Amino acid sequence: MQEFIRDLVQKNDTKILFIVLDGLGGLPFDGRTELDVADKPHLDALARASACGLHIPVAMGITPGSGPGHLALFGYDPVEWQIGRGVLEALGLGIELRKTDVAIRVNYATVENGIIKDRRAGRIPTDQSRKITEKLQAKLQKIDDVEVILAPGMEHRFAAVLRFPEPLPPGAASIKDTDPQKEGKEPVPIIPQTPQAGRVAQIVEKFIAKITDDLKNEPTANFILLRGIAQVPDILHFEETYGLKSLCIAVYPMYRGLARLIGMDAPALQGDVQDEIDFLKKNYHDYDFFFLHVKKIDSYGEDGNFKGKVSKIEEFDTFLPDILSLKPDVIIITGDHSTPAVLKSHSWHPVPVLLKSPYVLGQTCQMFTERECIKGELGIFPTVNLMPLALANAGRLKKFGA
Amino acid sequence: MQEFIRDLVQKNDTKILFIVLDGLGGLPFDGRTELDVADKPHLDALARASACGLHIPVAMGITPGSGPGHLALFGYDPVEWQIGRGVLEALGLGIELRKTDVAIRVNYATVENGIIKDRRAGRIPTDQSRKITEKLQAKLQKIDDVEVILAPGMEHRFAAVLRFPEPLPPGAASIKDTDPQKEGKEPVPIIPQTPQAGRVAQIVEKFIAKITDDLKNEPTANFILLRGIAQVPDILHFEETYGLKSLCIAVYPMYRGLARLIGMDAPALQGDVQDEIDFLKKNYHDYDFFFLHVKKIDSYGEDGNFKGKVSKIEEFDTFLPDILSLKPDVIIITGDHSTPAVLKSHSWHPVPVLLKSPYVLGQTCQMFTERECIKGELGIFPTVNLMPLALANAGRLKKFGA
Repeated sequence: MQEFIRDLVQKNDTKILFIVLDGLGGLPFDGRTELDVADKPHLDALARASACGLHIPVAMGITPGSGPGHLALFGYDPVEWQIGRGVLEALGLGIELRKTDVAIRVNYATVENGIIKDRRAGRIPTDQSRKITEKLQAKLQKIDDVEVILAPGMEHRFAAVLRFPEPLPPGAASIKDTDPQKEGKEPVPIIPQTPQAGRVAQIVEKFIAKITDDLKNEPTANFILLRGIAQVPDILHFEETYGLKSLCIAVYPMYRGLARLIGMDAPALQGDVQDEIDFLKKNYHDYDFFFLHVKKIDSYGEDGNFKGKVSKIEEFDTFLPDILSLKPDVIIITGDHSTPAVLKSHSWHPVPVLLKSPYVLGQTCQMFTERECIKGELGIFPTVNLMPLALANAGRLKKFGA
Repeated sequence: MQEFIRDLVQKNDTKILFIVLDGLGGLPFDGRTELDVADKPHLDALARASACGLHIPVAMGITPGSGPGHLALFGYDPVEWQIGRGVLEALGLGIELRKTDVAIRVNYATVENGIIKDRRAGRIPTDQSRKITEKLQAKLQKIDDVEVILAPGMEHRFAAVLRFPEPLPPGAASIKDTDPQKEGKEPVPIIPQTPQAGRVAQIVEKFIAKITDDLKNEPTANFILLRGIAQVPDILHFEETYGLKSLCIAVYPMYRGLARLIGMDAPALQGDVQDEIDFLKKNYHDYDFFFLHVKKIDSYGEDGNFKGKVSKIEEFDTFLPDILSLKPDVIIITGDHSTPAVLKSHSWHPVPVLLKSPYVLGQTCQMFTERECIKGELGIFPTVNLMPLALANAGRLKKFGA
């Protein structure tokens, strides 16, 4: 599909603003959802003038992680393009990945006489864990010709990246987790699952040996267990596919990392939504496409904080007039998945979306809510169709066939 | 999908009337679309009693040409069945194509010392161009055992058909355009892109040599450039697939040509919508399926003439009672794509459709408009699903499985 789109792309000087309110969709509590309850006059007015609908990131009933959710938003089939856990972990910890990298989630563990006593090394505090990881990194920068990059994480977790000097073939990181998922067992030995994985397996084995040697005098964190050993996928480039010079505006490292994976510019950025908008304005003339990510709505949903989620929707609404003053040719506001506060987690529910351009019907929805979006002109559709729709509304797709 | 349908088809004596109002869907101007504004009491009454919805010819965001739009209406996946430009051009100029034909779009051009001075030979007037083409045809009827058919076009354009005596393998017309798309260059030489294209390449080379030799004394049109060299696709036959003896009723040659490609009867016909209806009535007892094509609604849309498009919808509405007096078992009224007057072109917007048979819910839409069709029982669906729906409503599909 993306190759089909690429052949139809034509360039012009339009601007597309794609705002992701993470975890946007919700469920009723006392009959009304977070979007029903939120006082959000600007979003509601925009919805009335927009093409509205609901989109399904992966498939009906499937709850997407943040990776699949965002890939789908950018038009990448999230089942075809599965990003390994190690890669997502490394991105989330702020490592800039390259195509020759293998990324791994690592746990500190406690091992006695070769048997795992504690898979999480007593959940050692984050500051202790950080110190150990920094010490390990200081001692270990290379294994043979492979660069080693470690990033401290929360509690017993960290991420490791093995940066190979050469491109790796598909299947090069097909190695089972060394974590047996149960205490009282031995760590799973390193066994390549494909013939192509031999090179990486050798380096991983040396990696474990060197690290555990360095850890041998630690009281609890005296071993490591590896999970989600993963190659960086050789994914289609966003700009090559859509002809859009694109900027990611996000304060959380994982979203910037995902954006960089597909070739977006994603400079480091700190602060809140106001800082994101300032950054958008500063860079507005230099890009065609802006992915602006708003995190906190999801965070309150995950906490089961219904009122908190409502308040973050309301806060975003106050910023909307300022954003609209930029007069983008196409603006899309949606989420990467639903996070109903009543579920305290991501969910499978279709995600409300509004798309405003000069070329929509509009006047089908009274508010920007789940129930109103059902009445919209976009219907209920697969999330991967949003990008072609954005391009069409920007006049950036040629006619197909004569 | 079509092979799946074919196995379920059963015949009976029902009649299906499939009316295509070319470019039907629109967009608001001052808040109301062409269908909102049009005074069309009969269409609105029929919509109230019908199953309504909106269909997407190719994919969300994709603007279809007339070829893909109609193929989708007839149940052919327009991405799988791509009809080459040369074939569409020849069909549009009224040539009846056969399966052993290769069709080519040809430009008259001006060449000096082997370099293209003007890719369009100064856009020579149509009547001059026609005379030259007729002279060429008189001189050249055959190259070896291959029949040559030329059809004059507008200005510098004409179509050429090479009718081979034998069936050609797939890929037999894979030859690059000889038009380099820029003045100041030499024409692109004929190079077969596949091993199967050798035979056609040889004939095309001789074709260019003979024609340019005949043109050498012309002041401007002294050369030809070829584009869209294309084989007639070996496409599934409509009647074999659906068990419907079918008649195309269209005054524009391209639509008849497309219908003939899939094996419909499509006799030449001139006049207006009234002439089409007279023709429908005359032939009503001899066919099961009628594709009736109304062109002018699209033409006004393409011109950006909102009021003109409205008037043509209203004109069609006055004919509707007469059409309904035939009491077809299933009547479908829709378009092959949207052509909003505000866009002055085909567009990607879903196309309104109504389907009336004794077996619909009905009473979901108040009028035949884009916004009302969103509320309809058919939802928003891929255009290729219309034919199975038409057959089902005609009692022409058996149950699938026990």
